[in-house]
Amino acid sequence: MPDYPQFRFDVTGRDPAGSRARTGRLGTPHGVVETPNFIFCGTKAAMKGVLPGQMHRAGSQIILSNTYHLMIQPGAEIIAALGGLHGFMGWDGPMLTDSGGFQIFSMGHGGVADEIKGRRRPPSEAALIGISEEGARFRSYRDGSPLFLSPEGSIDIQRKLGADLIVVLDECTPFHVERAYTAQSMALTHRWGDRCLAEFDRGDDGRQALYGIIQGGVYADLRQESATYTRDRPYFGTAIGGSLGGEAGQMRAVVAETMRHVHPDRPVHLLGIGGIADILDGVAMGIDTFDSVQPTRVGRHGWALRKGGARERVNLRNARFRSESGPIDESCGCETCATFAAGYLHHLLRADELLAITLLSIHNVYTMNRLMRDIRDAIAAGALAECRRAWLGAASADGEQEDDGEG
Amino acid sequence: MPDYPQFRFDVTGRDPAGSRARTGRLGTPHGVVETPNFIFCGTKAAMKGVLPGQMHRAGSQIILSNTYHLMIQPGAEIIAALGGLHGFMGWDGPMLTDSGGFQIFSMGHGGVADEIKGRRRPPSEAALIGISEEGARFRSYRDGSPLFLSPEGSIDIQRKLGADLIVVLDECTPFHVERAYTAQSMALTHRWGDRCLAEFDRGDDGRQALYGIIQGGVYADLRQESATYTRDRPYFGTAIGGSLGGEAGQMRAVVAETMRHVHPDRPVHLLGIGGIADILDGVAMGIDTFDSVQPTRVGRHGWALRKGGARERVNLRNARFRSESGPIDESCGCETCATFAAGYLHHLLRADELLAITLLSIHNVYTMNRLMRDIRDAIAAGALAECRRAWLGAASADGEQEDDGEG
Repeated sequence: MPDYPQFRFDVTGRDPAGSRARTGRLGTPHGVVETPNFIFCGTKAAMKGVLPGQMHRAGSQIILSNTYHLMIQPGAEIIAALGGLHGFMGWDGPMLTDSGGFQIFSMGHGGVADEIKGRRRPPSEAALIGISEEGARFRSYRDGSPLFLSPEGSIDIQRKLGADLIVVLDECTPFHVERAYTAQSMALTHRWGDRCLAEFDRGDDGRQALYGIIQGGVYADLRQESATYTRDRPYFGTAIGGSLGGEAGQMRAVVAETMRHVHPDRPVHLLGIGGIADILDGVAMGIDTFDSVQPTRVGRHGWALRKGGARERVNLRNARFRSESGPIDESCGCETCATFAAGYLHHLLRADELLAITLLSIHNVYTMNRLMRDIRDAIAAGALAECRRAWLGAASADGEQEDDGEG
Repeated sequence: MPDYPQFRFDVTGRDPAGSRARTGRLGTPHGVVETPNFIFCGTKAAMKGVLPGQMHRAGSQIILSNTYHLMIQPGAEIIAALGGLHGFMGWDGPMLTDSGGFQIFSMGHGGVADEIKGRRRPPSEAALIGISEEGARFRSYRDGSPLFLSPEGSIDIQRKLGADLIVVLDECTPFHVERAYTAQSMALTHRWGDRCLAEFDRGDDGRQALYGIIQGGVYADLRQESATYTRDRPYFGTAIGGSLGGEAGQMRAVVAETMRHVHPDRPVHLLGIGGIADILDGVAMGIDTFDSVQPTRVGRHGWALRKGGARERVNLRNARFRSESGPIDESCGCETCATFAAGYLHHLLRADELLAITLLSIHNVYTMNRLMRDIRDAIAAGALAECRRAWLGAASADGEQEDDGEG
C-alpha cells in the first residue's frame, strides 16, 4: 500500500484562541503549499484569462484541473505526451486533479440551481446515462458520444495528467436525495475508493498522492461512517465532498461533525467551497485547503472581491465607478490595482474588452491569496476573530454574504 | 502655426541597395519610435487580451487608439479625468489616435467585404447619416443615437485623449466611388485639414503633433494634389489614407506615386496596412510606419504569424498541431513560444479558452516587432531583398499571400 515518500504534511501551529484552526506545510514534488490555502480552478488546463506567471505573481501556490473536461478535450494521452499538466500548461507549482465524478454526477442529477428553480434539463443534455457497480456511463459535453469512467479509469487518467494530488472517484449526491439513497451511494463510493487505492498502488511511482473522499450528505451518522472509512485507509489526504446542506448554518454543522472523525494528521480539503465567510468558517473547523471557481468566475462577470467592505464583492459595471480614479481596493497590492483605476475597469467591462476578465481575475486571485495569508498569520497570532472582522467588515455580524444586485 | 518643439524626426539611414527605404527616429514626449515600425491597434484604449507590460516585453514601441470608439465609450472627458490615454490604459510609450473619420465613413459607405459580396446592411445599421461642409453626422454604434463630428471636434477630442501623434479629420472614400466624388471629397478633406490645423494651433501646448492625411483614391493626379497639399502645410507628419485599390499591384502603384510628392523630411504613415508582404513593399517605397488590426485580429481566430514559412501564417486549430510538442515557431523568442507547445495552443483554441487569444496575440505582436527590427537592420545593411526572402520564404516569389483556408 502507498506510503507517499515524496509528500509530507506537517502541522506547524494551532489556534491558541481555541478554535480547531491549524497551520501546516503540505510538501509535494513541485513545492510546498502553506495551509490553510486556496486551490484555484484551471478547469481545462488553463486559468481563464490568467497566465501561470500572473498566477504566481498573485501569490498562488496551487492550481487544480478537472479530469472530466480533460479526458474529453484534449484527452489524457495528449497531455501525457506534452509533458503532463505541469509542462502542458506551464505551471511548475503543486497541482491537484479531481476524479471526474463531480461533473458527471452534478450534470446527471441536475445542478442545484436547476433543482431550486424547478427547472428540468431536456433529456439530451443529461450527461449521466447510468451508474453501476463498475462505474459511470455518461455523454461527452462536446459531442454527446457515450463514455465510461471506472475508478481504475479515473486513476489511470489522473496518472497520465500527472498532478501531485489526485482524488478517488466518488458518486457525488446532490442536496435533494433521500437518506436511503445517500447511504447506498456512500457505500458504493467506499467500494470505488478501495478500487482506486488498489489501482493507485499498482502504478505508484511516488510522484502522486491520493486523497479519499468523505460522502454521507447531510446525515451525521453517515458522515461519521464515511470519515471513519477514509481514516482507516492509506490515503494521503482527506477530501470532504457531496452536499453540505442548503445554507451556511447547516454546512457548518455537517463539516463540524465530519471533522470530529477525520484522520488528524492528514491534510483536509473541502471541495467546492470558496466564499470568504465560508472559508473563515471552514478554517475554524480545521479545514486545510479549499477550492472554488468563484474568484475567477465572478471576475468574468465584473465582480471584484474586496477586503473589509460592506459586502464581499462589488460590481465594477456599476455607474458609480465610471470616473473613479482610484484602484478597486486602496489596500490591495495586486498588479491590477497597482496600475489601473477602477474607472478603467468599468470602461473595459462596458466595452466588452477581454482585459477586464484578465485584470479582475488577477485582482480576485490576489485577494484570495491575501485572505489565506492573513488567515495563516491570524492563526499563529490567535487573532482569527480580528481577521474575520477585518475581511467581512459590517457583513461579519451574521456570517452571511449576499450579492448586492448590481450588474 | 505649430512647430512641434517636443517632437523630432531624424532620418538615420537610407538603403544603400537603392530602394527608397530609410531608417529613422521619431521622438515624442513619451519616447522614441525607431522607424520603420508598426503601430498596434488598441481600439478602445486596450489591446484585446494583451496587457501593456506584455506589449512592452514583446518589443512594441507605439500603440494607437480610435477616436470614434472612445468618444462614444467612455467619452473623452472621462479619459482626460483619468490621466489621458497613457494613464488610463497604463501605457507610457508613444501613442497615436486617429480622427474618427475612418470608422464613420467606412461604416456609412458599407465595408469593402459587404460591397464585394453584394450585401447591403439594413438601414438601422448604417452609421453615417450625412456629410456636410461642417462635419459628419452619424449614429452611435452602441445605442443608435445621432452624433456629430467636426474637424474642430475631432481635434478637441484627440487633445483630451492626449496621444502624442494625432490626425486630421478626413472623409475616407471606399474603393468603388467615382473619380468626380473622390476629387470633391478630397477637396473637402483639405478644407477640413486646414480647420484642424487652425484648431490644433489654438490649443497647442507642445505635447502633441499633428499628421495631415493624403486622399485621392486610386487617381495619380489627385494623389499628387493631395500630397502637395499636405507638404505645403505645417503638419508634423504625413498619413496616406483612403482606397489604395483592389490588389497589391495597384496599392504599390498608388503609394509609389504618392510618395514622389510627400514632404521628404516628415515621417510617413500608411494607414491600415499590415500584411508582411505589404509592409516590405511599403518600406521599399519609403513608408516609415504602418498600422493594422490584423496581427491581433487573426490571433483571436487562431492564426499565428511565422517567419519564413510557406505562408505568412498558420492556423493552430488545424489537427496537425494536436500533439505538436514544439513551439509555434522554433526561431521565435516571444513569451508564448518560450513556454508553450503548439499542441497546448491547439487545445486552448478547441476548448474556447481565453488564454489562446492572449498567447497568440503576444506571439503575433512579437513577430511583427521582430519583422520591423529585421527590416531596420536590413536597411542599414543594404539587405532588404534577403530580409524579404527570409520572411516570406517560398511565398516571396509573387509577393502575394493567401490564407490557407484552415479554421
